[in-house]
Amino acid sequence: MIPARMTVVTLGAHDMPTMRAFYRSLGWREASGSDEHSMFDTGGGIVALFPSQDLADDANVAHSAPAEFPNFTLAINLESREAVDAAFKTLRDLNVSVTKEPGDTFWGGYSGYFADPEGNLWEIVWGPTFRFDERGALILND
Amino acid sequence: MIPARMTVVTLGAHDMPTMRAFYRSLGWREASGSDEHSMFDTGGGIVALFPSQDLADDANVAHSAPAEFPNFTLAINLESREAVDAAFKTLRDLNVSVTKEPGDTFWGGYSGYFADPEGNLWEIVWGPTFRFDERGALILND
Repeated sequence: MIPARMTVVTLGAHDMPTMRAFYRSLGWREASGSDEHSMFDTGGGIVALFPSQDLADDANVAHSAPAEFPNFTLAINLESREAVDAAFKTLRDLNVSVTKEPGDTFWGGYSGYFADPEGNLWEIVWGPTFRFDERGALILND
Repeated sequence: MIPARMTVVTLGAHDMPTMRAFYRSLGWREASGSDEHSMFDTGGGIVALFPSQDLADDANVAHSAPAEFPNFTLAINLESREAVDAAFKTLRDLNVSVTKEPGDTFWGGYSGYFADPEGNLWEIVWGPTFRFDERGALILND
């Protein structure tokens, strides 16, 4: 079997300085960074940035212009509705693009979305059944 | 600040049964699943699947056809070159599309890439400085 791990998400970046500055502006710890790469420690997982063309080259696939919709999202699961609201207040103070203001979800949770400077989408979400480990990683129910 | 967490990656899926079957075929534990969603426990992080159109709707953004290059990759960091080779043997046995056979990297590591049925790219990688926590999540160097 293939080990069931999702250790790093790497976002193809078209403007590295802007993308790095953006994630730094969230208060995230940049564990490693240069003009050509950047890695942020995100608790359970790791989010990395890498130039889009170089990322395609590294995977040995053809590069192409990004789609309008990126076809994936990242999520930040939090412990309460109030924590979600506080995060969106910070995003507004940072003039971050909010695509969906936080609100109740059909499944009993509370969530909103923001976009990074290149349209990568992040959900900030609370749910009544969420549990977390000591690192803040979400624990999935069995 | 925004809590530095990357708890879930959700891949927009165009063919949910095929995508679910693919990740199950890797031997991954599907902690939650239905015709409309699927969540796999991946140690440090969580990889989820959700229909592409629904994902755009949930984020309140316009949907569009995916680009040829997805502009992000996921990584599975492993403890040795041999573990990387063993994983690629499994992938070949499963007739998975390998975009790059494992080989030495310029930075002293060893990695290859495969694509899921919709072209989402995964790197399987070993590096001489990798350390892991008890869940198998990668520990970034300070």
